[in-house]
Amino acid sequence: MRTVYMTATSLDGFIADENNSLDWLFSADSSAVDEPTHDFIANVGAIVTGAGTYEWLLRHEGHKSWPFTAPTWVLTHRDLPRVEGNLRFVAADTDEELRAVHKEMVAAADGRDVWVLGGGGVAADLARLGLLDVVDVSIAPVTLGAGSPLLAGRVDLQVLEVHRASDFACARYAVVKD
Amino acid sequence: MRTVYMTATSLDGFIADENNSLDWLFSADSSAVDEPTHDFIANVGAIVTGAGTYEWLLRHEGHKSWPFTAPTWVLTHRDLPRVEGNLRFVAADTDEELRAVHKEMVAAADGRDVWVLGGGGVAADLARLGLLDVVDVSIAPVTLGAGSPLLAGRVDLQVLEVHRASDFACARYAVVKD
Repeated sequence: MRTVYMTATSLDGFIADENNSLDWLFSADSSAVDEPTHDFIANVGAIVTGAGTYEWLLRHEGHKSWPFTAPTWVLTHRDLPRVEGNLRFVAADTDEELRAVHKEMVAAADGRDVWVLGGGGVAADLARLGLLDVVDVSIAPVTLGAGSPLLAGRVDLQVLEVHRASDFACARYAVVKD
Repeated sequence: MRTVYMTATSLDGFIADENNSLDWLFSADSSAVDEPTHDFIANVGAIVTGAGTYEWLLRHEGHKSWPFTAPTWVLTHRDLPRVEGNLRFVAADTDEELRAVHKEMVAAADGRDVWVLGGGGVAADLARLGLLDVVDVSIAPVTLGAGSPLLAGRVDLQVLEVHRASDFACARYAVVKD
């Protein structure tokens, strides 16, 4: 049971470009990435996402309902559009509150992984508190020069595995904890 | 004979951190990266670097003379400290001037590779002009959250090779040209 930040990223560390376009991601062949990604997502026991990633996913993928079945915590200070789904909206203003939310997610996951869907701020906050275990990135063959950061802070990692999958470079890391 | 941007980078696309420290790079085991890197550098026929990378290398690695033997073009608008070495300082203000400098480098390289030492601005300018052929990165097991960008612009790439080398994830790309 781990808390895993799994995401696609550009080679220069952006998970979304400045125009919120995904052409850079979808123009690459991801066939060998898709199956392990779907397998992971199908087996997670809880999901946490920031407000930006939540909105972005609904807006840009055109979902009328939340596309994942696992219970999802949306960290937000704003009123967000609500859609059908197993969703709860929390502020988690302080480290203590974020710890409490994480504890709740771990309990809900009941032995399965917790998926950090995004973005880079949520991943960085969890890492800072020692609550992030794994960073698993699929690197698209492009640099963007600007956009939303992969991980908004310094996090020391230990490489577990590196391989090529279709057009992507995939790397999995354990987060080094103090 | 290719123009190759070979560099180390953090997982989130920074080639130097905000404090110009290299602890994040040197704390990782790079033993399996060092030999191919040194082999590449020993065989390049010309080097191009931006002013920032030039200054940074002299200041932070404490070199009294330029540490590479191949003829080196330093792109700068400023007066820079001069050290012993096969160096020429050029402004390359316009695309035409950058093209001319690149032509001169290729001629000097005489069939060997041109190495883009850094930084991300020089690499992006060369890519924009269709003069960059290869991007070859050794990704250190860390995110920094801020620093000097790996590549300051959108560049479409084609993955050539991905492997793990000691603590690093290494990925080599051909630059996709229009």
